[in-house]
Amino acid sequence: MAIVTETARAGITCDLQKHHLEEDCRQLLNEPNLFTDVTILVDGQRFPAHKLFLAMRSPVFAAMFSHKLKENETNEVHIEDTDPEVVQAMLEFIYTDRVSNITPLARDLLAVADKYNLVGLKTMCEEKLYETLQTDNAGEILMLAEMYGSSDFVSCVIGFVSDHFRDIVQTEAFDEVNSVEILKRLMDALAAKKRRRAHA
Amino acid sequence: MAIVTETARAGITCDLQKHHLEEDCRQLLNEPNLFTDVTILVDGQRFPAHKLFLAMRSPVFAAMFSHKLKENETNEVHIEDTDPEVVQAMLEFIYTDRVSNITPLARDLLAVADKYNLVGLKTMCEEKLYETLQTDNAGEILMLAEMYGSSDFVSCVIGFVSDHFRDIVQTEAFDEVNSVEILKRLMDALAAKKRRRAHA
Repeated sequence: MAIVTETARAGITCDLQKHHLEEDCRQLLNEPNLFTDVTILVDGQRFPAHKLFLAMRSPVFAAMFSHKLKENETNEVHIEDTDPEVVQAMLEFIYTDRVSNITPLARDLLAVADKYNLVGLKTMCEEKLYETLQTDNAGEILMLAEMYGSSDFVSCVIGFVSDHFRDIVQTEAFDEVNSVEILKRLMDALAAKKRRRAHA
Repeated sequence: MAIVTETARAGITCDLQKHHLEEDCRQLLNEPNLFTDVTILVDGQRFPAHKLFLAMRSPVFAAMFSHKLKENETNEVHIEDTDPEVVQAMLEFIYTDRVSNITPLARDLLAVADKYNLVGLKTMCEEKLYETLQTDNAGEILMLAEMYGSSDFVSCVIGFVSDHFRDIVQTEAFDEVNSVEILKRLMDALAAKKRRRAHA
């Protein structure tokens, strides 16, 4: 009996690379009334959402919805410390792994990602902030890194500041750096650089 | 003030390609007790699941859980017409877009994917069946395609059968082909081939 060669099957077209899962999750964001069971309230705006998605992505939401907390009984989460557009971007990340407008929101999103322990979103914000790092904003980003950033991110920003220390130390943003720990880490980095130079 | 070049930022490592969403969805499959709200029962086995995920992926489940059907009130879905391992593979697809062991299950999964209108799973099964298409199973796959397959898949299998008609017509599997519609479509394909040869 003839065994048919591969070329005989060339006619079929399948697109297995297509990620239906991602599309289906994004669809939930676009049709938010399908099975929503919680509302996020920020500054008078209401964002319907799904406890399962929030909990699946954030251990903080998971804990909130696993216990008899007020949020879990009223099905409302009030967020006081950020803006509606930041919460909207956080929800976009939660449902789709993407944030379409991250650049102007990276600072505020980093704080929210830290609060809700959204590791992937935190990394996205850190990369965006690192891209925009310059002498005149390095002091500000160093303080943000210290408050909300991962330890990798803090190390990277300290590395950048020590590499451009002469310029950065004169900036207004650097005047605002008021963490003893960060200033000591920066001094260590500068001293290590000096030692490397002396040995070179 | 110095503008820092790209090379100065080479230190940071971020992996934005990593799909946290897919991992987080897969996690739900591995820790099935987190917020599960429905159980699928097959042949005495119980699979805890989430209505939201089933509904997000399958319009049939979406309809089931949107109305006052028995399944939605008892939070149990009884599936009678397939095996536990097929349901487990279907759940793996629903939560992860993948099926780790598709080859031996492709026939049964195609039927389940058709029943619950899981388009991506259907395509995966069709591609797998098309890969295994040979003269001695072509009749069987033609019948499967007619019962459960997409119209593209039916066309592809008919193309294959008409290309290897002389061998396939003698097989036992072809004896089982008992659909008038399919036989007529096959005859059309053979006649079209003859006409093309006559014109060549």
